[in-house]
Amino acid sequence: MVTTPPPANDPRDVVQAKRDGLELDPDALRAFILGYGRAEIPDYLAAAFLMAAFIRGLSTAETSAMTAAMVESGSTLPFAGVTRPKVDKHSTGGVSDGVSLVFAPLAASLGLAVAKLSGRGLGHTGGTLDKLESIPGFRVALGPPELEAQVERVGCAIAGQTPDIVPADGALYALRDATATVASIPLIAASVMSKKLAVGSDLILLDVKAGSGAFMKTPPAAAELASMCVGLATANDRRAVAAVTDMSQPLGSAVGNALDVAETVDVLAGRERGRLRDLAVLFAARALTELTADDPLTARERAERALDDGSALQRFAAMVEAQGGDPRVADDPWSVLERAPVIRPIRAPADGFVGAVDAEAIGRAGVGLGAGRVTKADPVDHAVGIVIRAKIGDRVSSDEPIGEVHARTIDAADLAASRVVAAIDLSDTSHPPPLLVHGWFEPTPPA
Amino acid sequence: MVTTPPPANDPRDVVQAKRDGLELDPDALRAFILGYGRAEIPDYLAAAFLMAAFIRGLSTAETSAMTAAMVESGSTLPFAGVTRPKVDKHSTGGVSDGVSLVFAPLAASLGLAVAKLSGRGLGHTGGTLDKLESIPGFRVALGPPELEAQVERVGCAIAGQTPDIVPADGALYALRDATATVASIPLIAASVMSKKLAVGSDLILLDVKAGSGAFMKTPPAAAELASMCVGLATANDRRAVAAVTDMSQPLGSAVGNALDVAETVDVLAGRERGRLRDLAVLFAARALTELTADDPLTARERAERALDDGSALQRFAAMVEAQGGDPRVADDPWSVLERAPVIRPIRAPADGFVGAVDAEAIGRAGVGLGAGRVTKADPVDHAVGIVIRAKIGDRVSSDEPIGEVHARTIDAADLAASRVVAAIDLSDTSHPPPLLVHGWFEPTPPA
Repeated sequence: MVTTPPPANDPRDVVQAKRDGLELDPDALRAFILGYGRAEIPDYLAAAFLMAAFIRGLSTAETSAMTAAMVESGSTLPFAGVTRPKVDKHSTGGVSDGVSLVFAPLAASLGLAVAKLSGRGLGHTGGTLDKLESIPGFRVALGPPELEAQVERVGCAIAGQTPDIVPADGALYALRDATATVASIPLIAASVMSKKLAVGSDLILLDVKAGSGAFMKTPPAAAELASMCVGLATANDRRAVAAVTDMSQPLGSAVGNALDVAETVDVLAGRERGRLRDLAVLFAARALTELTADDPLTARERAERALDDGSALQRFAAMVEAQGGDPRVADDPWSVLERAPVIRPIRAPADGFVGAVDAEAIGRAGVGLGAGRVTKADPVDHAVGIVIRAKIGDRVSSDEPIGEVHARTIDAADLAASRVVAAIDLSDTSHPPPLLVHGWFEPTPPA
Repeated sequence: MVTTPPPANDPRDVVQAKRDGLELDPDALRAFILGYGRAEIPDYLAAAFLMAAFIRGLSTAETSAMTAAMVESGSTLPFAGVTRPKVDKHSTGGVSDGVSLVFAPLAASLGLAVAKLSGRGLGHTGGTLDKLESIPGFRVALGPPELEAQVERVGCAIAGQTPDIVPADGALYALRDATATVASIPLIAASVMSKKLAVGSDLILLDVKAGSGAFMKTPPAAAELASMCVGLATANDRRAVAAVTDMSQPLGSAVGNALDVAETVDVLAGRERGRLRDLAVLFAARALTELTADDPLTARERAERALDDGSALQRFAAMVEAQGGDPRVADDPWSVLERAPVIRPIRAPADGFVGAVDAEAIGRAGVGLGAGRVTKADPVDHAVGIVIRAKIGDRVSSDEPIGEVHARTIDAADLAASRVVAAIDLSDTSHPPPLLVHGWFEPTPPA
């Protein structure tokens, strides 16, 4: 019935204060996070903290202290040797969300530098590294000197996160996944921003997805996360700008890995128009207005032109070549990418207007084919996936092809096609397409 | 940003539901507790559950399911071979709280059977086992057959809890202590009642202490715990009655181990009057009215008489002898108990009326002498301790002896004496003694 009297600086004091909804002392919170990063604080005590933080919330000051401590838990990559303006971009994850793959070479072609550390796919969302590895020979494991040299020379590089960057985040994320404490906006914000703050950049662009295919299901929830992330950058003397963008349907048309790379090339070559291109252009233009003297109209025209004149595609080829991949992927993707043995059309089941496209269900159909992971240890099949061209507001006719399934077997293809058809709502009346961008969040100017 | 989709019957579902304040399915909660008891559920997931349960609370149905699962996690002691009416008694822990030591032989002398599994002291509260072990030779490790045979023959036995009884409680208690989740009334109630329900009895008497020397600092908080414990018994088809009793000052006068045994003998021999005797009599009388045809007045007279005619003391001597101790302790305690080398009087610092006696501070002064434990691994010095006879409402004169310190060294004695004096408030006006019993809680009769 009695507890052992705690020693001075007992880490349980932090847990108890958060349990009781008190504001934590920043130094005590910092010591707790660094202690966990050094494995001096056991998982069970950190789990109790995470649950208390999930239920009671974390203030902006607490989230900022936690984020800074997570950065402090490992090494950083300042990229001090990169002379061009440096922009980092991060998406909270969606379905057919190939913006980063387009953005990096596009921004590079516009004179900016992009050193992007990416993750792998998990659940219904894809991962940039998995997509790039569908290009034969492509290496995502670049050491810091190699990464920095490539960025300075080519303008962009996309590499895997290394465990020495923000190690506390990796440990905390795994613990959150194991203890039902993932879906907390302050904990998500700390996780996202610690990884961005550990890497040198002049501007952090955040794409916070909202909708059925995103982690944040509604624009207000996404706005809360976006606003908190921007504030965390400001509190750490960095500049971040965030957009809340639509994930109520897949952004592009490809859900897979090789299929995503092929779509990236189509956008970079100016062949594919639509929402994926539009969003990549918006981010590139925003980076130009933030980091150069360009006005918004000029910035946008420059970004559009870089896609149409082949200069962005050329940067992509140079990046692929620098990272060991076959650069012919930029000219003729399917000459180097693996094609799935079974390709079956997806057909509209009736006449009508597309009213909804369940992005998460389509992402899960892609995972079912082998294009994604259920657990971190699962392998990814680069060749398989889904192409779905129907977008909200489109009119379709019965039996009209609206996409394709790329699969290993006919049975798998039929199953995935039926899941995609089930994920699309058709109605008799026309629906307007959803907004592409719900809003932008930028730092509050000092009063 | 996404979590792994949980498998069916994922134990995280229980944690997530409690996190969100939902009512848990009893079967799912049972599986969670049993899984933790079998070490299939890791500490970190149980820690997240405990924190969620601490903050969100547990309903009566949830607490009942948790308690039953804790009982199910180990073996039970039905004591089916004991023919006399069986009563179990438990105190939530206090300072100079020797009721159990008096109650067991007293009830036995009245024809009832008491098979009591006790714990050790921790923090500022003493433990029945530690006290008994100050009697040379006394064995607290009794196997179930020996325990049952002694209860049938002598009428009472007091033994140590064994790890095969309610193992989930031991594991959960250690985890609560490590994660700042001890002070939750449903979790405390489940811990207390699981140990009582695992042992066969016809009546469970609970002494829930309230005040400065108790875990529950106020009568309302103690009442909530008492009421919940009684309900947990009812939900498991058992009968419990609880009293909320005063712990705003030490109950008896001895704080130690040998000193407590000596006081127990004084009460059992009818020599010591006062609050410790009064409370033991109240519990014994209550057991008689519950388990025999005695009316309350008769029951109380019988209990008083058993103390005054030596029959309760004789049962104590028989119990000590049955458990290997020297029965002469019942006739002349200090002929067998170890005396501390230094005994110093505690003197009133001024004239006045005793207004408050900080029981926790006096308990901690006893721990400082070596009479108790700071951590579970600490040894206990049986000889040392404090005798403090001043009670709230008493009038004292400056320099009047109000107790003694029994210590290993003069320095230790002086320090303890000064701590005891500091724990006593004297005032110019008289204070009434606090109530001994704040209230009784018994099962609600069926509607």
